[in-house]
Amino acid sequence: MTPEKATELAEISNAIHLMEGETHVLVTSSKEKQIKDELYGHVDQTFLFDNDLQLGSAAYRSTKREVQIGDRLLGGSKQTTMMIAGPCSVESEEQIESSAQLMKELGIGALRGGCFKPRTSPYSFQGLGLEGLKLMAKMREKYGLAIVTEVRDATHIDAVIDYADVVQVGAKAMYDQGVLRACGKARKPVLLKRGFGSSLQEFVQAAEFILSGGNENVVLCERGIRTFETQTRFTLDLCGVAFLKEKTNLPVILDPSHAMGYAYGVPDLTRACMAMGIDGLLIEVHPNPKVAKSDAAQQLNHQEFRDLYGSLSKVGSAIGRVLV
Amino acid sequence: MTPEKATELAEISNAIHLMEGETHVLVTSSKEKQIKDELYGHVDQTFLFDNDLQLGSAAYRSTKREVQIGDRLLGGSKQTTMMIAGPCSVESEEQIESSAQLMKELGIGALRGGCFKPRTSPYSFQGLGLEGLKLMAKMREKYGLAIVTEVRDATHIDAVIDYADVVQVGAKAMYDQGVLRACGKARKPVLLKRGFGSSLQEFVQAAEFILSGGNENVVLCERGIRTFETQTRFTLDLCGVAFLKEKTNLPVILDPSHAMGYAYGVPDLTRACMAMGIDGLLIEVHPNPKVAKSDAAQQLNHQEFRDLYGSLSKVGSAIGRVLV
Amino acid sequence: MTPEKATELAEISNAIHLMEGETHVLVTSSKEKQIKDELYGHVDQTFLFDNDLQLGSAAYRSTKREVQIGDRLLGGSKQTTMMIAGPCSVESEEQIESSAQLMKELGIGALRGGCFKPRTSPYSFQGLGLEGLKLMAKMREKYGLAIVTEVRDATHIDAVIDYADVVQVGAKAMYDQGVLRACGKARKPVLLKRGFGSSLQEFVQAAEFILSGGNENVVLCERGIRTFETQTRFTLDLCGVAFLKEKTNLPVILDPSHAMGYAYGVPDLTRACMAMGIDGLLIEVHPNPKVAKSDAAQQLNHQEFRDLYGSLSKVGSAIGRVLV
Amino acid sequence: MTPEKATELAEISNAIHLMEGETHVLVTSSKEKQIKDELYGHVDQTFLFDNDLQLGSAAYRSTKREVQIGDRLLGGSKQTTMMIAGPCSVESEEQIESSAQLMKELGIGALRGGCFKPRTSPYSFQGLGLEGLKLMAKMREKYGLAIVTEVRDATHIDAVIDYADVVQVGAKAMYDQGVLRACGKARKPVLLKRGFGSSLQEFVQAAEFILSGGNENVVLCERGIRTFETQTRFTLDLCGVAFLKEKTNLPVILDPSHAMGYAYGVPDLTRACMAMGIDGLLIEVHPNPKVAKSDAAQQLNHQEFRDLYGSLSKVGSAIGRVLV
Repeated sequence: MTPEKATELAEISNAIHLMEGETHVLVTSSKEKQIKDELYGHVDQTFLFDNDLQLGSAAYRSTKREVQIGDRLLGGSKQTTMMIAGPCSVESEEQIESSAQLMKELGIGALRGGCFKPRTSPYSFQGLGLEGLKLMAKMREKYGLAIVTEVRDATHIDAVIDYADVVQVGAKAMYDQGVLRACGKARKPVLLKRGFGSSLQEFVQAAEFILSGGNENVVLCERGIRTFETQTRFTLDLCGVAFLKEKTNLPVILDPSHAMGYAYGVPDLTRACMAMGIDGLLIEVHPNPKVAKSDAAQQLNHQEFRDLYGSLSKVGSAIGRVLV
Repeated sequence: MTPEKATELAEISNAIHLMEGETHVLVTSSKEKQIKDELYGHVDQTFLFDNDLQLGSAAYRSTKREVQIGDRLLGGSKQTTMMIAGPCSVESEEQIESSAQLMKELGIGALRGGCFKPRTSPYSFQGLGLEGLKLMAKMREKYGLAIVTEVRDATHIDAVIDYADVVQVGAKAMYDQGVLRACGKARKPVLLKRGFGSSLQEFVQAAEFILSGGNENVVLCERGIRTFETQTRFTLDLCGVAFLKEKTNLPVILDPSHAMGYAYGVPDLTRACMAMGIDGLLIEVHPNPKVAKSDAAQQLNHQEFRDLYGSLSKVGSAIGRVLV
Repeated sequence: MTPEKATELAEISNAIHLMEGETHVLVTSSKEKQIKDELYGHVDQTFLFDNDLQLGSAAYRSTKREVQIGDRLLGGSKQTTMMIAGPCSVESEEQIESSAQLMKELGIGALRGGCFKPRTSPYSFQGLGLEGLKLMAKMREKYGLAIVTEVRDATHIDAVIDYADVVQVGAKAMYDQGVLRACGKARKPVLLKRGFGSSLQEFVQAAEFILSGGNENVVLCERGIRTFETQTRFTLDLCGVAFLKEKTNLPVILDPSHAMGYAYGVPDLTRACMAMGIDGLLIEVHPNPKVAKSDAAQQLNHQEFRDLYGSLSKVGSAIGRVLV
Repeated sequence: MTPEKATELAEISNAIHLMEGETHVLVTSSKEKQIKDELYGHVDQTFLFDNDLQLGSAAYRSTKREVQIGDRLLGGSKQTTMMIAGPCSVESEEQIESSAQLMKELGIGALRGGCFKPRTSPYSFQGLGLEGLKLMAKMREKYGLAIVTEVRDATHIDAVIDYADVVQVGAKAMYDQGVLRACGKARKPVLLKRGFGSSLQEFVQAAEFILSGGNENVVLCERGIRTFETQTRFTLDLCGVAFLKEKTNLPVILDPSHAMGYAYGVPDLTRACMAMGIDGLLIEVHPNPKVAKSDAAQQLNHQEFRDLYGSLSKVGSAIGRVLV
């Protein structure tokens, strides 16, 4: 199909137009409009999706997508699990550099750290903003780490896309189409967190906003859903992870820190996540959790994290996966 | 306190600075920073909030706030309940004009209609966007109706604030600080919907972002939360409404249409909401629900809505409230 | 069909055999077994239930069932709403007599009071047991009130059936087949409460255990479900009530006291329930809530209850229902 | 303290009286009654439980309890994880013998199989009842397996206690005090499943009914809670397991089969559970899942189970636990 015909098809059918390699892909909702007969001749192939998953579904593409993050690959078929760690929030250069050094010491390739924090209260610490992004970029330059940082809403999405190696769309922003559509136009990897009140169907559909925009570098992150149980902060949904592994073609990573909400449970949960055979882990670690400006209760200190990290390779070996 | 001192206080204490009438109000998080001694002399009054509700709490202001919407008042002490109705989405001029005429016929003062729809799938109808806002504005001019329309994310908040009489922050945008902070700077009424996965505490805190920005015209809207029950679309939380009435100073309105998800239950539920003694109702009504481009199952047709509306005044009288 | 054939059908088809008036009704699961050809000739009529509701469904019987409670009717077509009130637990003769006198004063026909309390902790007050049942029976004799009391488990179901006018199956016992099957064999009215973690489908199926046992006197009671919201004790599911009214033939009553968990919200919620057009109300009232041995926070005192009760008739009139 | 004094204390203080080895333990609710002065002299030691967990709490006993099941130990300090497997329901001698042979083949010590099934519908297969218990007992005699079978309600608790090696209290019976109190008087191990709508607090309190009755052989089983997510049957709560491991002294086992509801996710989930460092696993396996009379979708077939079982020892080794 020529690009001109693709555009025409897209326009008349309220459809999405994107390019994968040399092929134009058009996705349309059959319930809304039909492609006109005179254009149908330009369509090479059609898919009927019976479960309301589309570009992200295992039915559309049976092999798992692969995303390049810094010098490593996340997802794909090589049976690797990537560690991403760091503090909840970037608080100061000293603090984030301490975290960066820990990553370097352990051979971890990606550093997380929030700069635009989606806090519940307007009176809490809201993050360092652009200043934080610059500190993260400094860590990338100095330590060669891939930078993972969160976008809170569409007002600063351009800055985050600009500075980050991986754009993290937080749980509270999962439905934010201003963010999702901007991520769809970007070519940087997007780490999409499941909203804590969001169904798996909605979660995969949020990824579809990015995929259908033309950005194939989407990673799903389960981080706990909200249930009636209040002794822990959230409830990590590993059954949902089994569903995502079976039904989608997207890499899946897990964030047990936010799910648990308390450091005491994080090591056991992280090992459990590792044994699920997932593509990555996102762990909160802080030089001094007691004085952390956000999520103080759930962050591991450096020694706790070293101990945990040391135990993960063995669990990986037991199921044939390598920690990267 | 002089405005200069207020600004200085705001700056040094990471506090919020706003003006209510002639009074400057400063709110700070005691856990983070303390106000310096030399400035404390400029503080007339302090409040300690023991339940993590602040400007929106009944402890801070015991009388309910009042919001002007078009030619009517919502909230306050006059025991009125305001009807706001209209279709889920603006679909065409013919359709929205039919709705506007129904409002006019029944003496209803506010027309709802979505232009930026936060759909789950990128392949569904996404709303008419700016074109829809212009159609809504046309209805205001022609029929004298206050226009209530939804903002989906921060990318079009300025347009919505510009065109709407009431800026509706949808359930999926409740945590969107780009939207909330823009609403805080605006002076138009904001109808803030509770996220379906959001706690009451988070809901009131989202309002706090707007209040602390200086906009006091905030209306809370309960529209159903997500629970394990799937026979209905959501679960309308009237216990939560009782909490909001008791603990906050904000007007509360209810949207039984989205909670139920099926037209058959909407009339009974709407009468139940009326009997709760709330400040307003938000009901979906469509000239021809079967062909609606969104939420087809839950919208009443015009005759069903007329029947319902006719029954509400009696319920209002029974509890001493007037439908406006 | 002869009783012999009915029994034979029941045996060979793993079906349920019961008699309604002169008609034998057989219900079988089509997924499990087929009725043999030679017996099919004895079947007068078959129903196919597409929504997994059977004897309790509106598809099977379009008119609402009617249950005699003391000298009044609950349910049916007469547009009445029956009040049932009293303390959470029977604590002493003095206490329950004070409640009985209040019912008498207001012309209410049914008194509730728990004797076997399903407490969370083994170290809390567990109820007066048989002694309590005797006190309730004494109130019936002295004041002519119908006695509504709860069964906790199958070990004392015979005693409760023996003493009570209405056997209340509590939320925690909703799945208890020892209790449900005993209720199915009894002929006394059964007030079946929805489990707080139970779907509407399971709720109606629990009623089906009683109906298929031959007892048609079943009343459903919604009393709040467990959700992520913790500011109130439970979440009253009025959307679910709309479903039950539409899809079943069973009378529905509501218990806003347990749903809310706090007395301050009970009056508003009760009026909302009344306006839903339901068949009955179950309200907790105690002579001195502060010293109540269970559910102290949610019980109204006598004056609060009088005020509430006085306001309900007007709400009923507004929707064409009479409070009985 | 003499037994007489203990009894007196128990009577006057509404307290619980039990014997652990040679020590009498008394537990009372401080909110209800105070122990009288003249008896206080007989109290050797008192505990104040600040988190509403008592005999089952880590504060009361810091080492994990150990339960003998057949020829093996569950719990305690030896870092073992016990496998318990078998079909959902006992359906026939041929079927359960096939399962027993699989256990024998793999060296597994305990066989599960339900005889009294707590089905949602009265028209579904309800289990073989007593006949099933006899088949299970036959398997014990023939293959030396410990028999784990479920009690549905109090009407058949004596039979289950009589036949079973481990009395399983199902999720729907977790609040059943008729069952719990009978289990408290028995001395056989009790496998208590968490209700799918039950909080962790309620779960541990249900165990407290058994412990305070004098039976210390209690095992907690997490089997998935009900949440808004419906793509999987339930949501396995591993965060809750982390809580139980930290705060209680009770062994914890996991049932991923019921949580997931679909066989495809069970192997990954089971390995994740193993890596959590828990005391046991309860897995559903059936000779021919497609024709199973209950839970057909979630049962593994024999070869799937063999493959899974073979992979678990390696995961165990990685975290220093032995599969028994």
